[in-house]
Amino acid sequence: MIKITETMDSIFSDRIIDVPRSFIREILKVALDPTVISFAGGLPNRELFPAEELKAATSKVFDIYGRDIFQYSNSEGYPELREYISERYRQKKKLDIPVENILITNGSQQGLDLLGKVLINDGDGLIIEEPGYLGAIQAFSIYKAEFLPVPVGEEGMNIKKLRSVITRKNPKLMYTVPTFQNPSGICYSESNRLEITEILKGARTLLIEDDPYGDLRFSGDHKQSFKALLPDNTVLLGSFSKVVVPGFRLGWIVAPDRLMKKLVIAKQAADLHTSYFTQCVMYQYLKDNDIDAHIKKIIQVYGKQQHAMLESIERYFPSDVGYTRPEGGMFLWATLPEYVTSLELFELAVKDKVIFVPGDPFYVNRSGTNTLRLSFSCVDAATIKTGIRRLGKAIDELLT
Amino acid sequence: MIKITETMDSIFSDRIIDVPRSFIREILKVALDPTVISFAGGLPNRELFPAEELKAATSKVFDIYGRDIFQYSNSEGYPELREYISERYRQKKKLDIPVENILITNGSQQGLDLLGKVLINDGDGLIIEEPGYLGAIQAFSIYKAEFLPVPVGEEGMNIKKLRSVITRKNPKLMYTVPTFQNPSGICYSESNRLEITEILKGARTLLIEDDPYGDLRFSGDHKQSFKALLPDNTVLLGSFSKVVVPGFRLGWIVAPDRLMKKLVIAKQAADLHTSYFTQCVMYQYLKDNDIDAHIKKIIQVYGKQQHAMLESIERYFPSDVGYTRPEGGMFLWATLPEYVTSLELFELAVKDKVIFVPGDPFYVNRSGTNTLRLSFSCVDAATIKTGIRRLGKAIDELLT
Repeated sequence: MIKITETMDSIFSDRIIDVPRSFIREILKVALDPTVISFAGGLPNRELFPAEELKAATSKVFDIYGRDIFQYSNSEGYPELREYISERYRQKKKLDIPVENILITNGSQQGLDLLGKVLINDGDGLIIEEPGYLGAIQAFSIYKAEFLPVPVGEEGMNIKKLRSVITRKNPKLMYTVPTFQNPSGICYSESNRLEITEILKGARTLLIEDDPYGDLRFSGDHKQSFKALLPDNTVLLGSFSKVVVPGFRLGWIVAPDRLMKKLVIAKQAADLHTSYFTQCVMYQYLKDNDIDAHIKKIIQVYGKQQHAMLESIERYFPSDVGYTRPEGGMFLWATLPEYVTSLELFELAVKDKVIFVPGDPFYVNRSGTNTLRLSFSCVDAATIKTGIRRLGKAIDELLT
Repeated sequence: MIKITETMDSIFSDRIIDVPRSFIREILKVALDPTVISFAGGLPNRELFPAEELKAATSKVFDIYGRDIFQYSNSEGYPELREYISERYRQKKKLDIPVENILITNGSQQGLDLLGKVLINDGDGLIIEEPGYLGAIQAFSIYKAEFLPVPVGEEGMNIKKLRSVITRKNPKLMYTVPTFQNPSGICYSESNRLEITEILKGARTLLIEDDPYGDLRFSGDHKQSFKALLPDNTVLLGSFSKVVVPGFRLGWIVAPDRLMKKLVIAKQAADLHTSYFTQCVMYQYLKDNDIDAHIKKIIQVYGKQQHAMLESIERYFPSDVGYTRPEGGMFLWATLPEYVTSLELFELAVKDKVIFVPGDPFYVNRSGTNTLRLSFSCVDAATIKTGIRRLGKAIDELLT
């Protein structure tokens, strides 16, 4: 008898052996020390959760729905919630998305898993941003995609590199978070989006547009969704995690009919359906409250904190450290001179009781060792100032 | 540009193309007609959901946990809930299962998906019961297991066939629902379990023991879990769906350390974690209520309804129809003479306004065309009598 308790890797599937474990989650353990100032988390600010409103919505849901919310239900998700999402796309983004093309998922992370499941064969090419979202790298690693990194900068994707990858590899998929990307905070410019659209029109590549942060804009103009630019070959992912709460695990996929059929089968096999209880509570909350007013509150807080972070960086970081100036979202991205690494900086900074996420896990080839992600969502302006001052001191120490 | 809206199967992964769509879900649409008596559903009885208690638990959770329940959380699951599960195994089953070896999932269906993900390579052998649980067939199809069916009967697994499959194929995995199986309702006898244990001791096969119905015993003695008989190479799945509510989507996996590490990575990639909100509500409910008293109530109702179904079958079915006499669970299984099919019966029965699930989808090779599943969980004794009488009439019609 072979025991799984013994040292034996052969029982595991090939797909699971190489998945990178989230370094971020490891870092979060250090963050438990309350004297440490953490720019490491990727969490939305808990003080902004509409706790009372959700409590009221829950109480109503028990009265309105009775026992129905406790029963098994359909794999596509609660129709009223999908109708709400459809209507909001129409009103806010001028996107016409029928309810039938919306599938509710356990956060957009499950959207990535389901898309990987129904689309990726071993070795299928997948364009990923560099730096790119770690959760997507993990999810698509499972299905053994061949990652084709394309660098992103303040303006968006590197067009020359994108064109070259498409020409050389004609990959099946491209994954992008074009608006206030995790980890860099950047938002693709309008012209960058149009150039990407032109390139993809001539390719067989299916675009996965992940948009969890799009509503959190502090400044600048709304940019067109790829779903509007390339309606027939874009799959759009959305989430309630950043605008309401992440703990309910509620997101969605927008996909064309034929793909949706396959996604529903994959969803059935994955967990039958997402909890109807949480879906109904979310719907009731959205129905009874002004979500735009709520989002405005989040934007005010995050915007103020980001402003404090940028001001402090200007003041306390040496001038040869680069950084992004995002117009929204929860993160910004700093680049140290190439002769040092952010892991060395981390060692120094943690002694000064300030932490961040080193950037290399966001590169599929683990380059970008001189980059780091700074989150401003959960730290107030005064603490940000103290934290960035400490971090600036650590950078000075490292560079001299 | 290739549009996913066009007729083109090549964009889909090989794994998704052959997954059987759940016929049961298709049938459920017919069941919406309120004049139809349905033995087709696989649902627990909604009248038995502890709605008031869950409402009270929810209200408490908002007050006790505050905003914590809305935030992102750890992938393993809420520690107190896992502690409760561990303690219950100790008390009720005399199983020593540390908290670290319990992972909370979105129902046990997600347990199957995660196990498939971390264990199955293309073509890996997997022993499946015949008939077997459709959700498992779907989940493992995704990872392209080679199914090795072994027949089960009233006593349990066919030992001769099992031995032959193990000898010939030395498969990596075996999946079983040994206690009140879906679809047949059978419970493996103690001696059958011991024989299986002896065979697996000499094999490299990892056993996946799925136990969602084990607590729902109407009669007979508790049987030993394979987790007790083969502790080092059994993975155990549990669920709150049949003893509390399915709509929260809460189940769990019990796995040894090394497998657990991989499962946690897979869970992160799949959806980060299961909703903490629903986990906390479930824990509060379990803490504040006598779950054994609640289970007893379920057993009384299901036991009474099963009794009514057996009595009616004896009275109204022709004597050449075989059927199981389960000691628990939600289902029983009938076998028609081989010269007819249950699909033919379905066509007749639906005209008489009674439905069931034809048995062939529970066979990986779609044999078993003369079998059917009858669920007694959601139909009261008087209606069962009417429904079985109608069905008996349809069988008579079919056989003559």
